[in-house]
Amino acid sequence: MKRTEINELGEFGIIKRINSKFENVHKSTVLGIGDDAAITSSDKELILISSDMLIEGVHFDLSYTPLIHLGYKLVVINLSDIFSMNCYPNQILINLAISNKFSIEAIDEIYKGIKYACDDYNIDLIGGDTTSSMSGLVMSCTVIGYGHKKQISYRDKAKVDDIICVSGDLGRAFLGLLILQREKSKYLDEPKNQPDLSKYKKLVEKQLRPEARKDIIDYFKSYKIVPNSMIDISDGLSSDLLHISNSSDLGFKIFEEKLPIELDTYSVSRELNIDYLEAVLNGGEEYELLFSIPVDKFDSLNLDNIDITPIGHFTKNKKRSIVQKNGKEIELNSKGWKHF
Amino acid sequence: MKRTEINELGEFGIIKRINSKFENVHKSTVLGIGDDAAITSSDKELILISSDMLIEGVHFDLSYTPLIHLGYKLVVINLSDIFSMNCYPNQILINLAISNKFSIEAIDEIYKGIKYACDDYNIDLIGGDTTSSMSGLVMSCTVIGYGHKKQISYRDKAKVDDIICVSGDLGRAFLGLLILQREKSKYLDEPKNQPDLSKYKKLVEKQLRPEARKDIIDYFKSYKIVPNSMIDISDGLSSDLLHISNSSDLGFKIFEEKLPIELDTYSVSRELNIDYLEAVLNGGEEYELLFSIPVDKFDSLNLDNIDITPIGHFTKNKKRSIVQKNGKEIELNSKGWKHF
Repeated sequence: MKRTEINELGEFGIIKRINSKFENVHKSTVLGIGDDAAITSSDKELILISSDMLIEGVHFDLSYTPLIHLGYKLVVINLSDIFSMNCYPNQILINLAISNKFSIEAIDEIYKGIKYACDDYNIDLIGGDTTSSMSGLVMSCTVIGYGHKKQISYRDKAKVDDIICVSGDLGRAFLGLLILQREKSKYLDEPKNQPDLSKYKKLVEKQLRPEARKDIIDYFKSYKIVPNSMIDISDGLSSDLLHISNSSDLGFKIFEEKLPIELDTYSVSRELNIDYLEAVLNGGEEYELLFSIPVDKFDSLNLDNIDITPIGHFTKNKKRSIVQKNGKEIELNSKGWKHF
Repeated sequence: MKRTEINELGEFGIIKRINSKFENVHKSTVLGIGDDAAITSSDKELILISSDMLIEGVHFDLSYTPLIHLGYKLVVINLSDIFSMNCYPNQILINLAISNKFSIEAIDEIYKGIKYACDDYNIDLIGGDTTSSMSGLVMSCTVIGYGHKKQISYRDKAKVDDIICVSGDLGRAFLGLLILQREKSKYLDEPKNQPDLSKYKKLVEKQLRPEARKDIIDYFKSYKIVPNSMIDISDGLSSDLLHISNSSDLGFKIFEEKLPIELDTYSVSRELNIDYLEAVLNGGEEYELLFSIPVDKFDSLNLDNIDITPIGHFTKNKKRSIVQKNGKEIELNSKGWKHF
């Protein structure tokens, strides 16, 4: 494969190269890359904005993370923050700090992933910065979306008796990470053994190339429903449910037997000799949506073709509990997803 | 001085600590830190947004950069991107990646600088992310401002015969950097010699703690003037003037004798044995504004109490030239500010 050094192109050359591959589609994009600031415009009253970083050695390990997936994931985890407000993201800005050990072709791979995500989710890349780094790869993304006042789902507006629901299933992103780490150390011990990950495909995919749940927001829209509260699960179900609980000043009761868990979550947890509930409750980076809606609205939903699962409800008393399969009620505490 | 370890507080503790020190003042800030995304709102049609990173070892050297100045500079260089569109910034988001070698008190120092900048420029901190880093300190900032359609100054709208003007003076930020680097290596050779920087105060200040030229935008506003083109000088006068020239498809002629240069720029250039024009034309990180306005509007300005200097004009022919003091016209080329 061809290798072009970064300094052959320089900063402006890189910007031009990136820019040539992206085309703006939103009418809300007034001015994209190329001036001091980007400009957008919207007929909606509210502007939503969020920003997140991914750091080599902290959030990802390049020895098992394809650059193209990394670019995709960077965008998706940021989009997820706008979807979790029940709004649609329109634009992103990307900052990339990259060391000279990377080639231009490596940068191309990252932006290929970014472009796939932009195409999949209908997003314009409107700005950012590419600079050198003395050590690892650092990426930050800022995402902008727009919404009407009555459309927003906050963390602090959950109501008593609201049904607590979660999209998708839980635990697989965390197990995918453990599998990748195990296979890496096996490989380091015995470089001749190429890891066979086919058995763990869905877990590894969820870790390396998560999707944001735009389809859930589409679904709400089709029902004209605005969840009373919503958050995306990035720190783990426990931690994120506690965020809503704290912000809304309510307790909750969820039921272990209702938690959406796939068969491979059980089997791989057994294989790795860990409690599957640890992965399900405290595994981060799911990017599923956790939300609450009133009982009557929940009853009006047709859940046949959508992976939404009710797992419990919010309560007036401040107890935060999970009812185990044996019927015993215990307090749910958060171990969450610690970066430090 | 007290040293608190980062992991004593954890990510949420740090967010809470930061949040407690900031208060939102803009009516355009609907929701600050604490949900998946921040929310803003404005009665102006356009939203301006820009994002920039500062990386340890690339953009700053912690051996001579006080953390409080670093926080201040991070904000200011981002605000500058909105001012250079002739608009006012209202909000920022900050992402910080920091290694465990830093204490909570060090993070406090950075945010103290960020807070000073927010206070000085009337800015709300509405979001961001604090995470660990495996190596150096990485900071990114996203800034949002609002404006009316007719208020924006672009890079590509310079007109033939426009007077090219620059705010402040040029060359000092670059010389300040050279002085700091020289004193650092002296200190490393002979740690007993504490550097005396008092002689270089203004140069070092411009490097470590630049200001964004909000006052120039206020001045335009008082005259109801919208510059035909504008950019902030981050890459050096040559490079940034060439940006406008390329985008607007015009040539220009500027005059060496008109360039705004302070006495210490001459003297310190001599001391460092470099050509002062190198610092003036190619020194980056000035954060002064470079703009163009029609002759008749320029003539209507009272420049008595504002540091705006006309340095030349845009031309229909594509020649990009600087007229030397000896009357000789030479092509202006850009060495600019290379990060790679």
